[in-house]
Amino acid sequence: MNKAVILAGGQGKRMKAEMPKPLFRVLGEPMLEWVISACESAEVSDICVVKGYMGEMIDEYLAGRYTTVLQAERLGTGHAVQQAIPFLKNDESGNTLVLCGDAPFIDEKTIRDSLMLHTQNGNAVTVITAELDDPTGYGRIIRTEHGISGIVEHKDATPEQREIKEVNSGAYWFRTADLISLLGKLTNDNVQNEYYLTDTVGIALSEGKKAGAYKSDNANIIKGANDRHDLLELNNYARMEVIGKHLDNGVEFVCTDGVIIERSVEIGRGASILPGTILRGKTTIGEGSVIGPNSKAVDCIIGKNVVFDTAQAYQSEIADGANVGPFVHIRPDSRIGAETRIGDFVEVKNSTIGDKTAIAHLAYIGDSDIGKKVNIGAGTVTVNFDGVAKSRCVIGDCSFVGSNTSLIAPIRLGKGVYTAAGTTVTRDVPDYALAIDRGELKVNEGYTLRKMKSCKK
Amino acid sequence: MNKAVILAGGQGKRMKAEMPKPLFRVLGEPMLEWVISACESAEVSDICVVKGYMGEMIDEYLAGRYTTVLQAERLGTGHAVQQAIPFLKNDESGNTLVLCGDAPFIDEKTIRDSLMLHTQNGNAVTVITAELDDPTGYGRIIRTEHGISGIVEHKDATPEQREIKEVNSGAYWFRTADLISLLGKLTNDNVQNEYYLTDTVGIALSEGKKAGAYKSDNANIIKGANDRHDLLELNNYARMEVIGKHLDNGVEFVCTDGVIIERSVEIGRGASILPGTILRGKTTIGEGSVIGPNSKAVDCIIGKNVVFDTAQAYQSEIADGANVGPFVHIRPDSRIGAETRIGDFVEVKNSTIGDKTAIAHLAYIGDSDIGKKVNIGAGTVTVNFDGVAKSRCVIGDCSFVGSNTSLIAPIRLGKGVYTAAGTTVTRDVPDYALAIDRGELKVNEGYTLRKMKSCKK
Amino acid sequence: MNKAVILAGGQGKRMKAEMPKPLFRVLGEPMLEWVISACESAEVSDICVVKGYMGEMIDEYLAGRYTTVLQAERLGTGHAVQQAIPFLKNDESGNTLVLCGDAPFIDEKTIRDSLMLHTQNGNAVTVITAELDDPTGYGRIIRTEHGISGIVEHKDATPEQREIKEVNSGAYWFRTADLISLLGKLTNDNVQNEYYLTDTVGIALSEGKKAGAYKSDNANIIKGANDRHDLLELNNYARMEVIGKHLDNGVEFVCTDGVIIERSVEIGRGASILPGTILRGKTTIGEGSVIGPNSKAVDCIIGKNVVFDTAQAYQSEIADGANVGPFVHIRPDSRIGAETRIGDFVEVKNSTIGDKTAIAHLAYIGDSDIGKKVNIGAGTVTVNFDGVAKSRCVIGDCSFVGSNTSLIAPIRLGKGVYTAAGTTVTRDVPDYALAIDRGELKVNEGYTLRKMKSCKK
Repeated sequence: MNKAVILAGGQGKRMKAEMPKPLFRVLGEPMLEWVISACESAEVSDICVVKGYMGEMIDEYLAGRYTTVLQAERLGTGHAVQQAIPFLKNDESGNTLVLCGDAPFIDEKTIRDSLMLHTQNGNAVTVITAELDDPTGYGRIIRTEHGISGIVEHKDATPEQREIKEVNSGAYWFRTADLISLLGKLTNDNVQNEYYLTDTVGIALSEGKKAGAYKSDNANIIKGANDRHDLLELNNYARMEVIGKHLDNGVEFVCTDGVIIERSVEIGRGASILPGTILRGKTTIGEGSVIGPNSKAVDCIIGKNVVFDTAQAYQSEIADGANVGPFVHIRPDSRIGAETRIGDFVEVKNSTIGDKTAIAHLAYIGDSDIGKKVNIGAGTVTVNFDGVAKSRCVIGDCSFVGSNTSLIAPIRLGKGVYTAAGTTVTRDVPDYALAIDRGELKVNEGYTLRKMKSCKK
Repeated sequence: MNKAVILAGGQGKRMKAEMPKPLFRVLGEPMLEWVISACESAEVSDICVVKGYMGEMIDEYLAGRYTTVLQAERLGTGHAVQQAIPFLKNDESGNTLVLCGDAPFIDEKTIRDSLMLHTQNGNAVTVITAELDDPTGYGRIIRTEHGISGIVEHKDATPEQREIKEVNSGAYWFRTADLISLLGKLTNDNVQNEYYLTDTVGIALSEGKKAGAYKSDNANIIKGANDRHDLLELNNYARMEVIGKHLDNGVEFVCTDGVIIERSVEIGRGASILPGTILRGKTTIGEGSVIGPNSKAVDCIIGKNVVFDTAQAYQSEIADGANVGPFVHIRPDSRIGAETRIGDFVEVKNSTIGDKTAIAHLAYIGDSDIGKKVNIGAGTVTVNFDGVAKSRCVIGDCSFVGSNTSLIAPIRLGKGVYTAAGTTVTRDVPDYALAIDRGELKVNEGYTLRKMKSCKK
Repeated sequence: MNKAVILAGGQGKRMKAEMPKPLFRVLGEPMLEWVISACESAEVSDICVVKGYMGEMIDEYLAGRYTTVLQAERLGTGHAVQQAIPFLKNDESGNTLVLCGDAPFIDEKTIRDSLMLHTQNGNAVTVITAELDDPTGYGRIIRTEHGISGIVEHKDATPEQREIKEVNSGAYWFRTADLISLLGKLTNDNVQNEYYLTDTVGIALSEGKKAGAYKSDNANIIKGANDRHDLLELNNYARMEVIGKHLDNGVEFVCTDGVIIERSVEIGRGASILPGTILRGKTTIGEGSVIGPNSKAVDCIIGKNVVFDTAQAYQSEIADGANVGPFVHIRPDSRIGAETRIGDFVEVKNSTIGDKTAIAHLAYIGDSDIGKKVNIGAGTVTVNFDGVAKSRCVIGDCSFVGSNTSLIAPIRLGKGVYTAAGTTVTRDVPDYALAIDRGELKVNEGYTLRKMKSCKK
């Protein structure tokens, strides 16, 4: 079976953070995750991650999804792969892809096509390469009639070799058995006293084995990040790639400024995404919806023809035709019904709101189940917390909750219940009843003339 | 009289939406509207729009403003213009401009100046052209001493012709009588079996008529959109053009990210537009106002020296010196008085608010008429809807409405009225009176010690 | 002692505003302030500002920090510096830097290093220069073996001289005594009848004095602004420079759109700044905090690991681990405690909020002192203003304020006080007491069936 070894031991000192470099995020996902998901897409799912600097964070992130091995000392890329030898020996029959955990843009097609070339040519090792307009600093690929004769580091290259634009991406396919054998022959007879994985190419050739190179169309497989500037560039690149795919699919963007859409998000055609919109995680947006400006949705299912303007929603569902915003906060585990209006300055939390209901302004709805065609007045608060426990508030279909109402949970309002403005509702109300708690309004004439000296009319 | 025929039959399949291509919007207006308004600016206002794919949407959009004719089959641009022959025959005396409905950046100057050249030279047909750095794919203009000898499509061009950078924009002036005659002579003897409008040039020349070309300074007249990527590019171009005009006029922009200003918006000099600001429709902004960040105004009249921060307003008026935001929503048919403060988490709807009034926080003002120098406390709600009807709330000058007050409409508070916090005001209150509805506060000592086990101090 | 004369008399007509050009702002600070702060950084703090157009605004801005002199007529740069002769004569012993008040990007290193070259070479005058890819329009520096032989204006330059890419920045070091002498010898025998400061170079050389040039590595010292387009460009340049420094320091930016960070802001490493974030004045952000999107902080001290999402804060302090937003407005003189939650639709003004307190939704807290571990319910309003005076509200640790509560200040709630939802609290409440003001809830059965004809179920 084919395997992958991902090198994830780097530190990234210039990032200035205590975190392994492969855990820095591009478009919300660690670079390591980008590499893993490319492997998975290419059906290379037997993966070993070589950790090093703060390796425990790698384990914590992976949470047991894949094998990890520790490179305790930083003795070079060859040494890193050597740590994976026990993993390789589990099954020596196939091929092994070695990848950098901090070069996130390796892609499924490159992995698949390079494997095909690798196996068809019977190579012991196949370097994955790309062509750069400015190859300065990269190892150059020296091609021969039947494969490659080596990889020359920039500093060692002759002027002619420096003209070569095909460079080593740092990713390779090996026949697994050959890799194990080659790793055993690496030496650290060099200035840095490190074991270099690139040396495997020369050793293989010297043993009469075949070495080749696969040139990817995707030059971005080279891209990595050594500092926050690089990371910003990777983010911008990924951001525009994702937006480009949605444009292909018929999504409208009139201005992409401040728009961040993670890879996992799905958007229906004819939807429109306005500036300042952030869509994360497993969010889906239905056809014809208008999202933004200045909105955020995380792990939400948003239906068709929804308006979602200057709003935030988390782990919630918003049904077709709902109109949400501006200035709305929908917290986890909520469901907003179809054609329902959630208006300005409303928070909904852990609640279900039926279809065609209106919560148009200034309300807090928490731990509640609200029916269809309900109208909730401004200033309404579901009093779901008494300082000790949280309780639920249930409101039946077609009820009308007046303004500035407090609903003391646990409480159940039946269907068609009407509550008067300013009422504190302290017990259940049966269907079609009015609940009212109103004192007597006293009017004290001339009061202001006496009190309000400051008002000159 | 001079006329225009606008070709608006295209589908735009790669847009992935059921809509004629000319109806896709650039900066809030359909591309067709851009073309129409350029004609109107150049005083060419006798217009026929040739519709095709989903032509009923064109009619719906135009709502009778201009004649439309249907091209039932897609048999080429010449065939499209043929559909307009009855329109042309209404008055054959002048000239006819043929335009693409999906090339929005045709401009008044190009239309006027090309007409002048067309008539002065006595041309039967004048092609409107532009020069492109990369003319690949476009029809090249073959100039002669006195005019042009033809338009050569890219695929038919010789290597020398491909060096020509002057290309056909797809817009033409015709003598109307000549156009009618030429349309009658078009054939579909070509690979596509289509009737091409460009063939009119050759036919005219073969009949000894004059054909010329007018090269516009504005190369953007060429720009069209075949997919969402193109449309985004057109939007960005138009966005920056509009911002550029406001910069010329002395408007401050410190960062244009997320700023979308439609063509119809007017902004006074010295105003400042902050990032994330969207201004649509017939919005005007007075001198010295600061708009944004992250704000939206649609069809609003905003006065001078207004602060409008993180707010949205629709079809409303905001007078000089008002201070609005952050987090404010002004809904249609509202008027905010001069030097009035509309504070955070306030919605105003269909209401007039007098000068120097303060609605500083957390309030809903709907269907209300509020006087001058009024102070509205936090948590105030105008209860304008009782579930059946909407009613108005009137508050006189210099009144002071306490916090958490519900005003049950219809209701009228006189001048200088004072309402106590927490009051539900259920009937009219005369000038200078205090309205209060307050129960007796009971204090139950030691309650928390008994109830609140969770609080460890 | 070394001095600086800053020329700040320009108008900037194309800005279209009644303001001296040097007062136009780049990243929140007048261009003049950028120039002054570069001088101060380089320890040149004896400064004279030459004002002209609307000079009183220069005085108003400087508020007495530095000497100003008025150039009453616009007779050239030499004439402008002549106005400063009395200032120069105060101390003729050192050197004088002459700078343009509208070229904001002069930097400390350029000032220091040019002074060093100026004094080491014994120059009477040293021109500060930069190299431009396109020097069109600028005065060219004619170098000789030992210094320079002059500055040739673009219009007077020979074709060979126009090839020179080193240009005059408009900034110069003079030996003060020489400057005074040279200024006396300037004439206006030229087409414009103006006194040009550049003529001092020729006069000095003709007297056998030495003239040199210091070429700065920073070509941006040349940049100025004549219109709003230029000013936008300067802002964008400064914006990205500041962001770049924070990237160097280990701050995360995933997208810089709409991000405006003034020079005076400090951000800890590992903090993350999201799009649409504006940080002004003396704001500091602690390590690991996440700020934005769409937020604004002005003169705020924000601690470590704070979440500040879609919020605005002014002249306030937010302690470590606080969670603020979305949709929060913190007004001046507030302090938010550590690990405190300020939730959606909350305004805090001139208040101190203790640690681990929660004001999670829809509340106005003004002029209040709130203890630790307090819970404030939705709809709570501190009634700090009675129309005449503002008073404070004090709430003890571990208190629980119910929803829709009005607290009538001045008022003091003890520790562990519990207020029932919907209560208007009108007097002090002792420790651990319950305060409740609740009427009797009446339920009127069948009411809705009679009233609500509109609800068809």
